[in-house]
Amino acid sequence: MAESGCVFCSIVAGDVPCVKVYEDMSVLAFLDIGPVSEGHTLVIPKTHFETLDACPAELLSKMAACAGRIARALVAAVGAKGYNVLCNNGKAAGQLVGHVHFHVIPRREGDGVFARWPARKYEPGRAEEITDKIRENL
Amino acid sequence: MAESGCVFCSIVAGDVPCVKVYEDMSVLAFLDIGPVSEGHTLVIPKTHFETLDACPAELLSKMAACAGRIARALVAAVGAKGYNVLCNNGKAAGQLVGHVHFHVIPRREGDGVFARWPARKYEPGRAEEITDKIRENL
Repeated sequence: MAESGCVFCSIVAGDVPCVKVYEDMSVLAFLDIGPVSEGHTLVIPKTHFETLDACPAELLSKMAACAGRIARALVAAVGAKGYNVLCNNGKAAGQLVGHVHFHVIPRREGDGVFARWPARKYEPGRAEEITDKIRENL
Repeated sequence: MAESGCVFCSIVAGDVPCVKVYEDMSVLAFLDIGPVSEGHTLVIPKTHFETLDACPAELLSKMAACAGRIARALVAAVGAKGYNVLCNNGKAAGQLVGHVHFHVIPRREGDGVFARWPARKYEPGRAEEITDKIRENL
């Protein structure tokens, strides 16, 4: 179902233009208009779901398989050395359009696209504490 | 199949310890030992595949559905407001272990975990040029 006011639903409906990479019954892939690297593509389901955890498994399967296929073609097309598949869920995580989408981002050694990876360490016992809480919520 | 010298295959085999979040026949989820936010979890297939595009669709489906389920539990467990699901493929893209893995990263408004998003614009005609090349490789 389309969501009123959703720009990605409007793209699916053909009411807003896009530079289309791939389309089938379930998914649509098109270039991000604000690419973080050349060829940066978005893969979206044609049906409106806000976040990854809201999507049925069958649809996730199609989206992920499509992202993999696009990634392979994209890496070959732009001569990249790798790629990120990224799905931001919620505004706090950087999701700007509330219609779930996978970013497929071609990468080159030393391109500095995502230079920051602020890894930390857990205090003793903290990892187990958190894991217990996650498991309670599974 | 396990890959000799792969630390994630050793974790699957039980030869290297992990703080386990979830496990079933196909996938294993455990805390990242260098979390970028508290509760940062990795979801991996038990079978060794190097990158997302090398995984069979059925396995991707299980990994993505697991990531969604973990994300929902994780957000509730740590009181986050959103989450990123990220899969780095190839060293150039920041993949440090050559066994495909989805990072599930809980996020809070203004946490600055991934502050950088270096969006650009295409010169006129360039988006269409790139898309033609991607489609040739699909």
